[in-house]
Amino acid sequence: MTEAGFLGCCGSTRFAREMALRAPFSSLDLAVEAARDIWWNKVDVQGWLEAFAAHPRIGDIESLRTKFASERFCSGEQEAALSSANEHTLQELADWNRKYEGKFGHVFLICASGKSSSEILAALKERSTNRPIEELQNAASEQQKITELRLAKLMSSGFNSSGGDTQ
Amino acid sequence: MTEAGFLGCCGSTRFAREMALRAPFSSLDLAVEAARDIWWNKVDVQGWLEAFAAHPRIGDIESLRTKFASERFCSGEQEAALSSANEHTLQELADWNRKYEGKFGHVFLICASGKSSSEILAALKERSTNRPIEELQNAASEQQKITELRLAKLMSSGFNSSGGDTQ
Repeated sequence: MTEAGFLGCCGSTRFAREMALRAPFSSLDLAVEAARDIWWNKVDVQGWLEAFAAHPRIGDIESLRTKFASERFCSGEQEAALSSANEHTLQELADWNRKYEGKFGHVFLICASGKSSSEILAALKERSTNRPIEELQNAASEQQKITELRLAKLMSSGFNSSGGDTQ
Repeated sequence: MTEAGFLGCCGSTRFAREMALRAPFSSLDLAVEAARDIWWNKVDVQGWLEAFAAHPRIGDIESLRTKFASERFCSGEQEAALSSANEHTLQELADWNRKYEGKFGHVFLICASGKSSSEILAALKERSTNRPIEELQNAASEQQKITELRLAKLMSSGFNSSGGDTQ
């Protein structure tokens, strides 16, 4: 459980450093508890933006095709969203992602387990009407969900002392 | 009412540009209404941090002595705080300002009209226990109060078309 491994779970260097200082964890529950404390109480707003910026930007259809099933939308559980995606929805997702980034200055983050692409698009449109401070909090909550899924992979990977990444 | 004038009220370039686009304002109320809409709905989180960073950093007693009565603590109404400040309080303010910046990554902002230096110190200590997201919102609220006081000065200065600054 090295700093590099934790940085693969959440791209805030402060988060990764603090997690490495508290490691090793004897259970996933304890790791998640530490991650929540660090993310909500120790990482400052710049650190949140740093973590958001570590996610791939999605501004065109090609990158959406490539990234749609990636950890951007939560590692490993993208079947529903992926199977329902079509070109029209991908184009709309690309357009709204650009609008979202233009308004909020950071990527749209959503933990999309079990969600269809049209559900993700609906969430993106709805969240685009929020105030920046509201969307900062939404993005932070989604990042924390993604972090927890990645921590579970990290803890189960057996790479506990080798710094193995989940990417 | 130029962009430079509005930038003197609030150091977010987005804020200043939007205000200049909506100017001139026929009353202070209308200017404040526009400022609130822009600050809370249009300026993103990076813009908030940009505005906070435009305030002087206070990390030692000398800068506190110089800046204590400045617009950092709200323009022009610092008598209560200033008259009550003593070396011990200044030292404590300097120490806690450094701790605050270390935790939150931005300056401590407070609109201190009518507050004594010990009241400001008490607020600083209390707010230092907050989570970063809470303190981001507190700082944004204080910035808006400061902005409104500066707008009042700008509107009454008669420099409406000359870009005169309030500094």
